[in-house]
Amino acid sequence: MSAIKGNLVVGQSGGPTAVINNSLVGVIHEALAQEKIGGIYGLLHGIAGVLREEFVDLRAESPDALETLRNTPASALGTVRYKVADADYERLLEVLMAYNVRYFLYIGGNDSADTTHKMHLIAAQKGYELHAIGVPKTVDNDLAVTDHCPGYGSAARFVAAAVRNTGYDTIAMGDTGPLKVMEIMGRNAGWLTAAAALAKEAPDDPPQLIYVPEHGVSVEQVIEDVRYWHKKVGHCIIAASEGMKDDKGGDFAKPPLKSVGGKAAVDAFGHAAKGGVAEFLEDVLKETLGLRARLDKPGYLQRSFGELTSSVDREEAYRVGREAVRAAVSGESDKMVTLIRRPGPVYAVDTGLAPLEKIANNEHKMPTEFINEKGNGVTPAFIEYARPLIGGPLIPYARLACKMMPKRADSH
Amino acid sequence: MSAIKGNLVVGQSGGPTAVINNSLVGVIHEALAQEKIGGIYGLLHGIAGVLREEFVDLRAESPDALETLRNTPASALGTVRYKVADADYERLLEVLMAYNVRYFLYIGGNDSADTTHKMHLIAAQKGYELHAIGVPKTVDNDLAVTDHCPGYGSAARFVAAAVRNTGYDTIAMGDTGPLKVMEIMGRNAGWLTAAAALAKEAPDDPPQLIYVPEHGVSVEQVIEDVRYWHKKVGHCIIAASEGMKDDKGGDFAKPPLKSVGGKAAVDAFGHAAKGGVAEFLEDVLKETLGLRARLDKPGYLQRSFGELTSSVDREEAYRVGREAVRAAVSGESDKMVTLIRRPGPVYAVDTGLAPLEKIANNEHKMPTEFINEKGNGVTPAFIEYARPLIGGPLIPYARLACKMMPKRADSH
Repeated sequence: MSAIKGNLVVGQSGGPTAVINNSLVGVIHEALAQEKIGGIYGLLHGIAGVLREEFVDLRAESPDALETLRNTPASALGTVRYKVADADYERLLEVLMAYNVRYFLYIGGNDSADTTHKMHLIAAQKGYELHAIGVPKTVDNDLAVTDHCPGYGSAARFVAAAVRNTGYDTIAMGDTGPLKVMEIMGRNAGWLTAAAALAKEAPDDPPQLIYVPEHGVSVEQVIEDVRYWHKKVGHCIIAASEGMKDDKGGDFAKPPLKSVGGKAAVDAFGHAAKGGVAEFLEDVLKETLGLRARLDKPGYLQRSFGELTSSVDREEAYRVGREAVRAAVSGESDKMVTLIRRPGPVYAVDTGLAPLEKIANNEHKMPTEFINEKGNGVTPAFIEYARPLIGGPLIPYARLACKMMPKRADSH
Repeated sequence: MSAIKGNLVVGQSGGPTAVINNSLVGVIHEALAQEKIGGIYGLLHGIAGVLREEFVDLRAESPDALETLRNTPASALGTVRYKVADADYERLLEVLMAYNVRYFLYIGGNDSADTTHKMHLIAAQKGYELHAIGVPKTVDNDLAVTDHCPGYGSAARFVAAAVRNTGYDTIAMGDTGPLKVMEIMGRNAGWLTAAAALAKEAPDDPPQLIYVPEHGVSVEQVIEDVRYWHKKVGHCIIAASEGMKDDKGGDFAKPPLKSVGGKAAVDAFGHAAKGGVAEFLEDVLKETLGLRARLDKPGYLQRSFGELTSSVDREEAYRVGREAVRAAVSGESDKMVTLIRRPGPVYAVDTGLAPLEKIANNEHKMPTEFINEKGNGVTPAFIEYARPLIGGPLIPYARLACKMMPKRADSH
């Protein structure tokens, strides 16, 4: 099957990542190489750019700017969190038809996959040839079918580095500040929090404890976990998912807690806005162990730190962008590009295509075999899965050998 | 004047930095080259290592480990926040005498300078020849006499990068999340918060607002400042010092606020523990402008991010370590090594020596000429001062030219 000549639109949606522009540049580079593609239009703020007819001419961008864009975090076209209403789709299609758009490339997560799927459906229903292809992107790593998601590897590298750095800082502080909590992005899926384990060089290294939403833990267990590590190594660094759960499946952080205007906050998709896990842990540990925990809440740095991306992630983000255009011009539609890991000891991926319906509004959480039995750490299988994604080891750090001098016989 | 043969101790004190180990390695390298120096002993956890007689043999460390240590953040010997009591000094001197220590090198801030000064005094009082030299270190950049402090340049580079990254993220989000607050270290001095200005490439770039403790602002002004920028550019990124003050000189963040166990927290030196500025700004902006602000609180990453240090800072931290040993063996005592900036357009520093008494318990705050009139940003003079310290520009980022396509004549 071969596709029709026409224009292409590309948009970016949902939370930005540090490498999402690689997917955009991949789309542009491949579109420039395809004879079937006329105009290459960027959508300002994703699907909102169609509704507002805010298209930019991506053929007018300089090759140098596109190269530099590959090092630039956050969606260069602007992103959007807008739940497209069913009533919007006819209008969206009408705009695309008016601009003779035949290729609809949408870089995003599961909400975006839903939008792309529905764009395909409305076009098919109206008998308009439109090739709608999803380009995977999310630091949450929670898309179905694909082995992993572009954006995750770079966020994972940042989290691993951040936890290692704050771990060194905590160890240096000794008795003065032995507890540290880093609150990590992930409302429902623990992939990014789990990546903190990549900071470890030895089993007792920080983070000593990792809590992910997929495995709830009781407050009592957390207290005992911290007590154990504090006693064993003199400190304890906790990587806590913002969506951490208790052992009954409820939120681990209990009210009264920080919320927006006193009301529980939800985003445009009705997802509950989480947070407050770090402060709740701080209070609990102060109250029960009498120890003050220090908090790091790196927030949006986790998904935007352009100075510390994964080379693997960067290349894969670019590649899925190119692949999406190739799929579209070869006649595909209603698909998302996936990454398929080759078996064997050397990390390599192929790309594939999966029906958008399998991705849309589906959350791929961490499987049981990646979380330890107690729910306070990850398994070697997870490390094996995640390590190649961060693009090589972190820079080497050293510890002193610390050969102790003998004490004086008469010392106090 | 020439100094006596004997052993050397070196300790690290106060908050770690990303380059403090360069000062340690500088001390070790120079001590290895000095014939007058016998044993080179590291103090575990600073002055506490003297009280506990926890000395490590630094001659036993491998040259390779020392090289790698130069890339490793946080005090490798462990640090301490212990206010030395007057009654401790006799005991401290007794230990140093027992180990024939003639060189006391202490890497730290103003509290450490006080300790070093008093070690000098007690030795002089007892007629024991001891060369006590301070090695400057603090991300707060608040030491008197010296042009700037090792540790600051790297923390400043991290803060500039962090604000730029979260700024790109915020701009990408558009109307969905136009406000961002990053809370930055600095209880009384705004040097590190001010470094956020180095993220700017153009006047309207993030951070649009910078609030430092040296210049209080009213809540009303902050609301108007944010309203102005949100209207002008559609978003607003705020770099807020954790020690931000109101226009009457009180804390900007008002209770009820997060505190430890409901009581105002203080550290071992009686300094008030601050914080809560980000959440207070979030509440104020939600209440008055109806806009939700996103928060980044990178916490201890600001002083420990080994992956993003300043090359200038790294070299200077090493150099002041070497200089301190040279000063000690040439007979100096009761001094701290300083950095003296040469006049002229090309950045260069010389080292000098200043009496510890001028440094001890003295806080060098930002001068008026570095803060703009309204107290919501910095001046070009500050930029000129700070830019060389971060060790070259941040990696280049790109924005799209965004040539808009003409709209259809009949578009909605």
